[in-house]
Amino acid sequence: MTFSKASAVTGGPGRWRAELAEGWDIFGISNGGYLLSIITRAMGEEADGREPISVTGHFLNPATPGQVDIDVETLKKGRGLTTMRSTMSGADKPLLVATAVFAAHERGSHRSELVLPAPPDIPDPSECVLAEPSDSAPFPPPFTGKVEVRIHPEDAAALLGEKTGRPRMRGWFRLRDHEPLDAFAVILASDAFPPAIFNTELPLRWTPTIDLTVQIRQPRPAGWLRCRFCTRFITDGMLEEDGEIWDEDGRPVALSRQLALVPH
Amino acid sequence: MTFSKASAVTGGPGRWRAELAEGWDIFGISNGGYLLSIITRAMGEEADGREPISVTGHFLNPATPGQVDIDVETLKKGRGLTTMRSTMSGADKPLLVATAVFAAHERGSHRSELVLPAPPDIPDPSECVLAEPSDSAPFPPPFTGKVEVRIHPEDAAALLGEKTGRPRMRGWFRLRDHEPLDAFAVILASDAFPPAIFNTELPLRWTPTIDLTVQIRQPRPAGWLRCRFCTRFITDGMLEEDGEIWDEDGRPVALSRQLALVPH
Repeated sequence: MTFSKASAVTGGPGRWRAELAEGWDIFGISNGGYLLSIITRAMGEEADGREPISVTGHFLNPATPGQVDIDVETLKKGRGLTTMRSTMSGADKPLLVATAVFAAHERGSHRSELVLPAPPDIPDPSECVLAEPSDSAPFPPPFTGKVEVRIHPEDAAALLGEKTGRPRMRGWFRLRDHEPLDAFAVILASDAFPPAIFNTELPLRWTPTIDLTVQIRQPRPAGWLRCRFCTRFITDGMLEEDGEIWDEDGRPVALSRQLALVPH
Repeated sequence: MTFSKASAVTGGPGRWRAELAEGWDIFGISNGGYLLSIITRAMGEEADGREPISVTGHFLNPATPGQVDIDVETLKKGRGLTTMRSTMSGADKPLLVATAVFAAHERGSHRSELVLPAPPDIPDPSECVLAEPSDSAPFPPPFTGKVEVRIHPEDAAALLGEKTGRPRMRGWFRLRDHEPLDAFAVILASDAFPPAIFNTELPLRWTPTIDLTVQIRQPRPAGWLRCRFCTRFITDGMLEEDGEIWDEDGRPVALSRQLALVPH
């Protein structure tokens, strides 16, 4: 099943319906980036062709495959920006709320451009470690079979029992069968890698996302996405994970940040 | 007027009222961190003593001094976390929506702590440049008189017409008259410095915040806050500003990130 089909929404306006697909889950719980891409797609259907530049989701209850409803409310439709708020609900409880901002992406029309960091240096995809679901264990999860994630060999060592001690995860992302990328796929990519903290002494367990924000700077990147995720602060049972997503040519595609609970 | 008075809320539950104070504005528009601290305080009143660990605000319309209403909705009250959503409205339109997560801060109770970056190195507050409102010009704005912001001399050069070319703003923050800090003051601090991009070729003009997220890792820091704000990506008319807030002793207090429009 393609990503666009697995994240499709029907109905609307105001109330949309989606079917959380089997297999897009981790330890039985639908992947957070997958859910955020679906809820943003529902809002996007009411955005008059504007594309998401920023979305923040707050995860309320674990979601499992099956039908969900998405209520969308337009908070402001301005000259340049549209802001919307939405709630995804399962049979009996809210799963996710999100607020998103949509705009006409004005690519290349601005004089002032500044990109300070260098894109991450990652070996060719063929030399990276393909994340593939395990037939016999819950990890790597089925979700890894739905996307194509190729992890930098240094960082992938965590999954083979050799942690680097450095909470970082770099690698390449694309959709299966070279399905073209859109802003919703970029949101998916922001939460598709194993947590960077798997390279610390923390256990390889579910790391529940509290909230996730994605800033989308380029909504239709071509080719592979070049990704780097890092955690710098683990305090009081909480951690952030910052992501940078670049395109194959080294231009910025998105910035992400999530707050998560330390797994135990 | 103290910060706690300037950010007080009355009424509730469900609907709160606040008075946006005179002087807490920039070019006539109430400061974004100030608004976010007020809306979070309203949610906090219904959080059963839990304190904010994360809040995201989306700014819809410019706010000016005067009365506002704040509607608060509890989305989930869980064993460990409470998530709330709120809307601040002026006379005839919505100004700000926010979603926040509250928890019992469990200071020092976790084994796994990791803090990778070093706190910023800033000269003693007495050797920094005090941001003070101008009597004759709109900049520096009245807001600077409501807090005590002391800027690293290198970065303050931007305000004196000598830009460093490096979009960074470091310095010290505290409330006037040594008023004790709480989580709401930390939110205020996250948007109290001049934009880091004032040190680039961009003009010293209003830099409208689209959204602002603050992760609060320490809700009641003592003494000065040691702050660093940087922008790394200016693309397509958008920029992010990332903040790190530390306490005097070099322990993390908060992380912030905002998406803003490039001023012109």
